[in-house]
Amino acid sequence: MEKYCFGIDVGGTTVKCGLFETDGTLLDKWEIPTRTEEGGSQILPDIGKTIRAKMEEKGISAGDVAGVGVGVPGPVRGNKLPYAVNLHWGAMDIGEVLGTITGLRIKAGNDANVAALGEMWKGGAEGRDNVIVVTLGTGVGGGIIVDGHIVEGAHGAGGEIGHAHVEDNIHDACGCGNCGCLEQVASATGIVRLAKEELVNKDSSEATELKAEEIDARIVFDAYKNGDSVAERVVNRFAKYLGTTLAAYSCVVDPEVIVLGGGVSKAGDPLVEIVEKYYKDAAFPACKETPIVLAKLGNDAGIYGAARLVLG
Amino acid sequence: MEKYCFGIDVGGTTVKCGLFETDGTLLDKWEIPTRTEEGGSQILPDIGKTIRAKMEEKGISAGDVAGVGVGVPGPVRGNKLPYAVNLHWGAMDIGEVLGTITGLRIKAGNDANVAALGEMWKGGAEGRDNVIVVTLGTGVGGGIIVDGHIVEGAHGAGGEIGHAHVEDNIHDACGCGNCGCLEQVASATGIVRLAKEELVNKDSSEATELKAEEIDARIVFDAYKNGDSVAERVVNRFAKYLGTTLAAYSCVVDPEVIVLGGGVSKAGDPLVEIVEKYYKDAAFPACKETPIVLAKLGNDAGIYGAARLVLG
Repeated sequence: MEKYCFGIDVGGTTVKCGLFETDGTLLDKWEIPTRTEEGGSQILPDIGKTIRAKMEEKGISAGDVAGVGVGVPGPVRGNKLPYAVNLHWGAMDIGEVLGTITGLRIKAGNDANVAALGEMWKGGAEGRDNVIVVTLGTGVGGGIIVDGHIVEGAHGAGGEIGHAHVEDNIHDACGCGNCGCLEQVASATGIVRLAKEELVNKDSSEATELKAEEIDARIVFDAYKNGDSVAERVVNRFAKYLGTTLAAYSCVVDPEVIVLGGGVSKAGDPLVEIVEKYYKDAAFPACKETPIVLAKLGNDAGIYGAARLVLG
Repeated sequence: MEKYCFGIDVGGTTVKCGLFETDGTLLDKWEIPTRTEEGGSQILPDIGKTIRAKMEEKGISAGDVAGVGVGVPGPVRGNKLPYAVNLHWGAMDIGEVLGTITGLRIKAGNDANVAALGEMWKGGAEGRDNVIVVTLGTGVGGGIIVDGHIVEGAHGAGGEIGHAHVEDNIHDACGCGNCGCLEQVASATGIVRLAKEELVNKDSSEATELKAEEIDARIVFDAYKNGDSVAERVVNRFAKYLGTTLAAYSCVVDPEVIVLGGGVSKAGDPLVEIVEKYYKDAAFPACKETPIVLAKLGNDAGIYGAARLVLG
């Protein structure tokens, strides 16, 4: 009986590793550095070594391990990916390479999608099978889960939530090359953009806590909670972009729950409430009551999701 | 060996029926009236009778039949639906009722979603597993297919493509109760709305084929093909709404192909070209080359998709 599995979350600087029981109990977690030199050729061997060392340490035999799930920053489709810029990888067959090294079953996925699966399994959407997870960090990422499975997409672009076009009046390019993406107005940096605009446009007599030279998403939300009128306009604009876009996604995949994660989600309940307001305005009637909740797993979402991925 | 299956498409006035071989060959199709009187209580028994009669006529035994797929106008989830207004139904367990009557395996789905599955199986998206189908008719409907399966959604609202909020400056309500839905600007009636606006706002010296009192989507597209400048503005506005929304959906589900169907799609290649132009502007880079094609099955999409549904 396979009692254990590994969840591996490969980032540009560290690889997060988790040893789980197959019921989702996290037994141990640790990190190793991501060695991106030599085209990242040591990354998968390093992962193989740390897994074998952990199995030896815990007295776990290969027959006890259901497999190794791996989240990587790139467009994965069926265990392979064409490139992963942050890892200095070109085309890579993770299943083949890591499977040969470890002798274990391997399942790979895109890191944002895998983190979404983690939130479905043991986080904000625990017990649900149909979920949209949005990660509001430096960018806007996420993952779509339908009937318990990640929507990978034909080009590995499933769940690229941040790249809906939402604004015609932005003329500088998003990281993706387009102009006017959700990510440009609803990420931590997008909130700073909106705040700077509001500060430039505000009436000179209007008092505000916000200062153009010292601003981030946390400062904006703190001012919003204090009733600052400029911050209120910023947060309402942000929430309208995000809530309306989530409503559009909702009438396509009709999830049981929408989860908000990433650094911006530390703003907590006031964030959920204002996004929910604009979501409800725009949502299809059958989906208006779909709950919007906060993510729970923080930086561990990736290892949980990777472990869940290999359990099928 | 099960050689046959039935595909049934239940509409408000007629029930379309198809007898198929399990490889998708349509052997026979016919219609019966939809008897909506008495709360629509005769609809499923009528379907049972016509199936039995057809089996008798063709000398087909129950053991030769893989099952009966049924598309109905309502929010189906797992063979059941809470209501179907056009059929005068309240809550209905189609699998239970029709299964008892026929003794055959039953699988039900929402009619728009089922039609999308038909286009995937034997229509514009034949050979693909990940598809967005948009039906541009009186309304805007559609279906999302991920890895060969319909996305039903938690409330049976999967694929409700027409109800993305796309316009803040519409203050009359869509059929769904919200204001500013895609359906209000991208359906046949939405195109008429845009044309009337452009006729009101145009400079009096600008010549146009379009007349406010005599206008429909076909007339607008005919004028567009003739180079009429007012029709050009209408079609470009329509295509921008639709193409941008499809691009947003594309970065969520990342399909292999997008299929345009419904009455408006009779405009043909010029429709595809202009929608593709705005789609490409807004699409995530990995999805920019996703083909947009015309639906092929017309009114038969429903029976094809219903038959495919029961094959699993």
